[in-house]
Amino acid sequence: MLLFHNTMSAPSRFVRLLLGEYGEEPELQEELPWARRPEFLQINPAGTLPVMIGEAGTGIVGAFPISEYLDETRGPIMRNRRLMPGSPLERAEVRRLIDWFLVKTEGDVTRALVRERAFKLQMSAAEGGGAPDSAVLRTARANIRQHMRYLGWLAQNRNWLAGDTLTAADLAAGAAISILDYLGEIDWSGEPSARDWYQRIKSRPSFRGLLADRVRRLPPAPHYSDLDF
Amino acid sequence: MLLFHNTMSAPSRFVRLLLGEYGEEPELQEELPWARRPEFLQINPAGTLPVMIGEAGTGIVGAFPISEYLDETRGPIMRNRRLMPGSPLERAEVRRLIDWFLVKTEGDVTRALVRERAFKLQMSAAEGGGAPDSAVLRTARANIRQHMRYLGWLAQNRNWLAGDTLTAADLAAGAAISILDYLGEIDWSGEPSARDWYQRIKSRPSFRGLLADRVRRLPPAPHYSDLDF
Repeated sequence: MLLFHNTMSAPSRFVRLLLGEYGEEPELQEELPWARRPEFLQINPAGTLPVMIGEAGTGIVGAFPISEYLDETRGPIMRNRRLMPGSPLERAEVRRLIDWFLVKTEGDVTRALVRERAFKLQMSAAEGGGAPDSAVLRTARANIRQHMRYLGWLAQNRNWLAGDTLTAADLAAGAAISILDYLGEIDWSGEPSARDWYQRIKSRPSFRGLLADRVRRLPPAPHYSDLDF
Repeated sequence: MLLFHNTMSAPSRFVRLLLGEYGEEPELQEELPWARRPEFLQINPAGTLPVMIGEAGTGIVGAFPISEYLDETRGPIMRNRRLMPGSPLERAEVRRLIDWFLVKTEGDVTRALVRERAFKLQMSAAEGGGAPDSAVLRTARANIRQHMRYLGWLAQNRNWLAGDTLTAADLAAGAAISILDYLGEIDWSGEPSARDWYQRIKSRPSFRGLLADRVRRLPPAPHYSDLDF
């Protein structure tokens, strides 16, 4: 199994966590989303990440299709460790939260901070590289607080984010939050319930690969890999 | 059943088409996405559309969770008219295309054109209303061509967009394209296969409600409701 991903892509991290929970160890190939490599566009004309090359050699494109594919093909043998609950309404809640963290948090916060602080460091001037745009950073940072409050509210009112058991929603949230934490953008002092939840998810074996990730020229926040932060 | 929607929201139109194909007639409540009505934010803190209030009185939030929920609860009784294929790989392809039309086309084209041409007409100056930004219009219009080419390629190489049978992917594409067609933004002369596909999907009874939609102060392109355009 092969996964085209980027270290700073939350949907990519989500799929790496899913595969970790399913006990799969894919070969990872890092893709630079702005490069639009022709061979990669052949596999995914949208140019987005992640793309998983599965058993049949066919590319499965995008976090939402991959997540559902893995649940359909591997979910049943997971039994009570399945990452999607049994009832349609509970499944809808898991999917709502995946959308929240991989689409809304992404659009309000993560995409902008990653582009300005990580990708622009690696891009040439012709590709749009250079110094971060401080107005964009300011807007994204102002939005973080609302997202941390919502995460805190979920963590305070539920055992895991979508209910009693660990689900794919926790992995989607962990994927997004771990990128913001790498960048040192999260003030953990304000949201003790969110912090407690993150400590639990961060301690899972599926998280180890993410905590070992390093971006060229951009070291992580000092506490990034600490399980006790 | 109640659906919070907006006439100019492609994910809302997608769910209306799904419900039409499933033979459901929901009560429709139009929501102005920029208004951020407190009662609506109680149901969906993300403030996004659509939201469906289903059998249990619970809100099901977002096109992707609603589409999966409807397939899980109603798909099996649809038998060979089911909108999701049977195999996990074919289902992944349908989901990839839903993502393409409701996320990529939305981000590259639809969202900008709807905001500039439809929403700004209805918003007060304080809400951000006013004349369209011509630079934004220019970029979105330049992107339409690539999206129409891809639609044409799919329509030429497959019977329906995801394969032999009508699936939710056709409804997602129909939702996005019908909004661009309302706005008169599509040049149908360049893509005969896409036009043939749109004629077929537009003729379905599930499409009737969409073709009767009208936006205040913004009449549709003259051919919008014609089944033979």
